[in-house]
Amino acid sequence: MTGALSATRARLLISLTVEAGDPRLVEWLDRCDPTELWRAIERGRPDVPRPWVERSAETRRRVDETLARAERAGAHWVVPGTPGWPVGVEDLDHLPGIGDVAGAPVGLWVRGGGDPTTILAAPVGVVGARGCTTYGAECASDIAADCADRGHAVISGAAFGIDACAHRGALVAGGPTVAVTACGVDVDYPRAHAALLRRIAEEGLVISEYAPGAEPQRHRFLVRNRLIAAISAGVVVVEAAARSGSLNTLHWADQLGRTTMVVPGPVTSQASVGTHRAVREGRAHLVTCGAEVLADTFGITIEDQGELARVSAAARRVWVQLDATPKPLEQIAARLRLGTVPVHRALRELHGWGVAVDDGEGWARRDTASRGAGQ
Amino acid sequence: MTGALSATRARLLISLTVEAGDPRLVEWLDRCDPTELWRAIERGRPDVPRPWVERSAETRRRVDETLARAERAGAHWVVPGTPGWPVGVEDLDHLPGIGDVAGAPVGLWVRGGGDPTTILAAPVGVVGARGCTTYGAECASDIAADCADRGHAVISGAAFGIDACAHRGALVAGGPTVAVTACGVDVDYPRAHAALLRRIAEEGLVISEYAPGAEPQRHRFLVRNRLIAAISAGVVVVEAAARSGSLNTLHWADQLGRTTMVVPGPVTSQASVGTHRAVREGRAHLVTCGAEVLADTFGITIEDQGELARVSAAARRVWVQLDATPKPLEQIAARLRLGTVPVHRALRELHGWGVAVDDGEGWARRDTASRGAGQ
Repeated sequence: MTGALSATRARLLISLTVEAGDPRLVEWLDRCDPTELWRAIERGRPDVPRPWVERSAETRRRVDETLARAERAGAHWVVPGTPGWPVGVEDLDHLPGIGDVAGAPVGLWVRGGGDPTTILAAPVGVVGARGCTTYGAECASDIAADCADRGHAVISGAAFGIDACAHRGALVAGGPTVAVTACGVDVDYPRAHAALLRRIAEEGLVISEYAPGAEPQRHRFLVRNRLIAAISAGVVVVEAAARSGSLNTLHWADQLGRTTMVVPGPVTSQASVGTHRAVREGRAHLVTCGAEVLADTFGITIEDQGELARVSAAARRVWVQLDATPKPLEQIAARLRLGTVPVHRALRELHGWGVAVDDGEGWARRDTASRGAGQ
Repeated sequence: MTGALSATRARLLISLTVEAGDPRLVEWLDRCDPTELWRAIERGRPDVPRPWVERSAETRRRVDETLARAERAGAHWVVPGTPGWPVGVEDLDHLPGIGDVAGAPVGLWVRGGGDPTTILAAPVGVVGARGCTTYGAECASDIAADCADRGHAVISGAAFGIDACAHRGALVAGGPTVAVTACGVDVDYPRAHAALLRRIAEEGLVISEYAPGAEPQRHRFLVRNRLIAAISAGVVVVEAAARSGSLNTLHWADQLGRTTMVVPGPVTSQASVGTHRAVREGRAHLVTCGAEVLADTFGITIEDQGELARVSAAARRVWVQLDATPKPLEQIAARLRLGTVPVHRALRELHGWGVAVDDGEGWARRDTASRGAGQ
């Protein structure tokens, strides 16, 4: 088996053996490739952490069962550099980490019918307190619906409270939504969200670095949070008490250079203490609606939003990658993990609507002022 | 009469003749002193604006009646550079102005039993929508009570809604409060606030640049707003719809270099649209309570607030003038418009509590770290 070991399978075996977010894994994968690391673990080389070696025997026993379980759930294993790997996740590899969590996942389990490249082109994370108020629930649902309605996937954690409202808001708007979980993609956690998770998988994606069947553990929610932040272009916290886990997601988003946003609320509400503090400490922008989330994350002005309403979802995802500096088609396609043909088609459409220009060197947004002048 | 004309009386005559906030007045007083200007108006010199000349006859007729009316109301006329002139008002003289309003008042009518120098040493403006929500009313009242309870006067405009809640919150906390009005200090406007204005005058001050008996006019509220901002060390807007007049006060505060703050609220409330926008546009800090208002305005940390709770109100007002750089006693006294004897007494008290130090060159705050180390 070792002779035929592919990097993809080596990453799978490592994923089943080493707890996700273990900062030692980043160091190992900086020094050697996944197949070398797996062989070192399997052979029990003395410099490899003992727990990894001890767990490797069990990994070999359960790998086929795990793959069979994934197949039954409609989930597959995706590794960096291959189609379907979410843009931005690799940014985690060169961060100092938070607490004892660091590094990008070695691979991800992805369950769902949607095309990850399309869904994850311009996503927004919407997270917050499990014990939210009805006000927070309404805000999360409205903001998620606004984003999804304009073709931006809503990323959240499938938890009670704000997370569920964000997913539901996106689903009701008919837009894509993605649950990033702290357990296997086939595990219904929380149990009451079994139907919600099924709908998310049908219309979007459920993503996890934990193997199918894996149960959530307290530590895993913190590990998972970094992934919500990394997959999202911007993260909005809707409600968070003083020590809410969503502030950990916001911290990761900040470290990753993502747009960090919070929704204000009544100062008399404990559920808004953490969000207000984040604004006061300069760790997040204040946003009051989906239009402001898109403006802050993608630089889409209110005027742009009117013009982009006419544009197809595919073209819109290309548009958000553009800015004032012309970029070659190939660079835009590479960033989106798409071929040049569909990207060129999208750019032609954007050009037709007057929201993108090709100056010969590359493609750029047509600025609002010159659009106004041309009308 | 012209031979004996004092600058104080010239300012009074000008005040009765020239509409407050007229930007031409700043230019005139830059070029000549008040007695020269009044004589130019009185003689109808051709370079003086015609309406000033036309109104001067009426001013001469009604000046004695105005003074008698002021006396009956317990109000007196205060001019720059004399005791009782509020610190900070002169900052208005070197601003470009907003709209067609510019310049410091030529003098002020002050009604009330309190000592202006003591009351106005470290004041906070709390303003907002007339049509406020019960949430906004509660916030304004709580913040005002927190500030007043710690010895900081609460400045507001005596209007319905947030203003009234701010004054009442301060009064209930037993602290000083100051109404700056757009009509004469003896005019009960709004009529329903007659009793509130009487209480404010008894326990604090009612201040106006309009003569006793003057009625409020739409334009005068905007003129008045600059005075609330100038007298206050920091201004908090509690609720403001998109085009609220309180945002005009915030704009003046910003131009004057005062601390600008707003209280967030539900994003679903129209009464918080203006405050949220101010945060998004970087025109104001977000604050959620009186302690944060004092922290942002005077650099009083939560730890300081604990220590300062033991300090007398007089000493506290001196403390807020200190910072990390030692300043001579005389400079501190001059800034407060107080003699060196009471300021020295206050500094000895602050030294006794360990919150101020004298390094021989001058007095400074004792920083939190060294206070901690000394305990």
